[in-house]
Amino acid sequence: MEAFIYDTPTRVYFGKDQEQKVGEIIASYGAQKVLIHYGTQSAVRSGLIDRVKEKLEAQGIAYVLLGGVQANPEIQMVRKGIELCRAEGVDFILAVGGGSVLDSAKDIANGYANPEDDVWDYTLGTAKPKKTTPKGCILTIAAAGSEMSDSCVISDSGQRIKRGYGSPMNRMNFAIENPELTYSVNAYQTACGAVDIAMHTIERYFCPGRDTYLTDAIAEAIIKSAFKAGADCLAHPTDYTARANMMWASSLAHNGLTACGRSTQLVVHQLEHEVSAMYPKVAHGAGLAALWCSWARYVHKDNLLRFLQYAERVWNVEVDYDHPEQTALKAINKQEQYYKSIGMPTSLHELGVKAEDLEKLAFACSRSKKRTLMGVRPLTYEDILAIYRMAL
Amino acid sequence: MEAFIYDTPTRVYFGKDQEQKVGEIIASYGAQKVLIHYGTQSAVRSGLIDRVKEKLEAQGIAYVLLGGVQANPEIQMVRKGIELCRAEGVDFILAVGGGSVLDSAKDIANGYANPEDDVWDYTLGTAKPKKTTPKGCILTIAAAGSEMSDSCVISDSGQRIKRGYGSPMNRMNFAIENPELTYSVNAYQTACGAVDIAMHTIERYFCPGRDTYLTDAIAEAIIKSAFKAGADCLAHPTDYTARANMMWASSLAHNGLTACGRSTQLVVHQLEHEVSAMYPKVAHGAGLAALWCSWARYVHKDNLLRFLQYAERVWNVEVDYDHPEQTALKAINKQEQYYKSIGMPTSLHELGVKAEDLEKLAFACSRSKKRTLMGVRPLTYEDILAIYRMAL
Repeated sequence: MEAFIYDTPTRVYFGKDQEQKVGEIIASYGAQKVLIHYGTQSAVRSGLIDRVKEKLEAQGIAYVLLGGVQANPEIQMVRKGIELCRAEGVDFILAVGGGSVLDSAKDIANGYANPEDDVWDYTLGTAKPKKTTPKGCILTIAAAGSEMSDSCVISDSGQRIKRGYGSPMNRMNFAIENPELTYSVNAYQTACGAVDIAMHTIERYFCPGRDTYLTDAIAEAIIKSAFKAGADCLAHPTDYTARANMMWASSLAHNGLTACGRSTQLVVHQLEHEVSAMYPKVAHGAGLAALWCSWARYVHKDNLLRFLQYAERVWNVEVDYDHPEQTALKAINKQEQYYKSIGMPTSLHELGVKAEDLEKLAFACSRSKKRTLMGVRPLTYEDILAIYRMAL
Repeated sequence: MEAFIYDTPTRVYFGKDQEQKVGEIIASYGAQKVLIHYGTQSAVRSGLIDRVKEKLEAQGIAYVLLGGVQANPEIQMVRKGIELCRAEGVDFILAVGGGSVLDSAKDIANGYANPEDDVWDYTLGTAKPKKTTPKGCILTIAAAGSEMSDSCVISDSGQRIKRGYGSPMNRMNFAIENPELTYSVNAYQTACGAVDIAMHTIERYFCPGRDTYLTDAIAEAIIKSAFKAGADCLAHPTDYTARANMMWASSLAHNGLTACGRSTQLVVHQLEHEVSAMYPKVAHGAGLAALWCSWARYVHKDNLLRFLQYAERVWNVEVDYDHPEQTALKAINKQEQYYKSIGMPTSLHELGVKAEDLEKLAFACSRSKKRTLMGVRPLTYEDILAIYRMAL
């Protein structure tokens, strides 16, 4: 069990109608002018943005609006947000949406608070934010875990770059989580969410580390719950229990809880980021589903015992001690079947990825053959390319 | 799944040698003068207090010392601490010890920050702290979970009153958790700790609520890990893995994580507080062990399905669907055997409790027959007395 810092300062308001408290909550931070940041028109059409405006007005808090965040949020939108904050003297940022809106809001909060920096340097890893702007969110999709995470993923589609950076500055001050707000998330996005949630914990589970049996058991609990909740949400989109467990799993899967005592590099996330950077229409969750089983088949022999634990405890596969590799593969197959059952792709060609792009993807993911991904085993350019080929 | 607020702002520094950072950490809060609050001489003899002083001196931070906190911390010590803080102009409180020292420090922090209140009113529940003083801790016993909890338990042995109060003001700003500092905790206190840790989660597990399968699975993970770690610590007191998993379980068991979506009243804790209020030499964990099985036998028919889930998932008892009550009782017996195996009492008479005191205990626990404890079923004075009698 390695040393770690556990720091999850985000205050979560969870349950029906919690968004009605948004005015009081923001007032408690002494805010005078709020940037309300959101995505497509659905948050407006559903009346949610109007409810937020009303609650802020009731507290005498001014606001400006900035909508239009797309999936795979763009640095251009971040720059626009920072300019707007400066022009308007904003002192609080409220994100209303899913992971993309939240990440865009986080990057705006950081860029706005550190005018001496170029905000894109945070994404490139060539600078770190030293301060931030108070921020909170009303979550409308359970998937990315951004509501409690220290992570922020931003793209520059012009350069085909999509990268994440971690920072304590990326923690939301509060997150409002009303599972009913996710009833309208469509089947495809719901399935993508289940994949992403479980994957945040699965990736940490397979990071180097040992003697973390408490963290392991919590991770197994979250993975199984996310898979169960995902299937239940698809069967009954307005099942409160399913939406609630899925939403809470989203927050716990990525807030740091499942990494305590283990090192952390989200390898399949790294493989996926290149895919959705090059093919911006690829949903992150779908990309993860298309890649994970190939990654797992490629690396399973390098930590077979970990795969046996995973097989037994997460997929209820009885361990065959005479043929342990078959046990591992059986679990991987079960996960693949699960992905198919919820309408997720299990190969890159289903996402429109072309064979001739695989070398470019591997080149980018290995940062021009200079980066080795760490995890169950080190992955160089050649390994990464082999996994992309297996996944095609 | 009920609405809830999840708020665990305590920053945890976990691992070997983490206490070496204490000077820098306290400096980061801008502290000028620290109250170092501790218990018996063991923290001094071990050299830990000297190391803390050295680290504060290296940062140019002044300090005053207040030792002598006993198990079941007393309001008199709290008042002394508040006076010392006022006389010395303290602006940060550092607790070095276990749950008793931490609770004493929390109450000092609250009383000192709200001079208009009588601090004892917090314990009685007739006032609530509105502010607090910044505070942190170096934990030396894994048991009470006070390092991340919002709870504070204070006694007035003169009045034979021992009560806890919850408040967001009771959250530590930081907790330093070095498992090696618990190597010297003796077998009895280690066993008491394992009981207390598991009980914080078991009690929440049996609170009213449903459709919380993620919270349930996390709770089961923590309970099993605490029992395993407890036994392992006793077998090998310097087993880092065991001490580390036990310490981390202590924090997670009581920080709110295992109550998400369920209501919370720690019923067996309420039963126990009266016992250790009347018999101050009774260790809290030992009191819990002496009471839980009787409580469980008394109430198990009132939520049999919950006891079946507990039996199957925590104690690996195969459910006998023809005789479900036997399954529940089998699990309760297994827990009783576990307590015996780690040297814990399973009856009140082992703790020196006398039959003639049981009515007084029940009278006090029911607050003069005016309070009904809620949990698996409501417990009035008569029920409470019946449980004490079963437990004798």
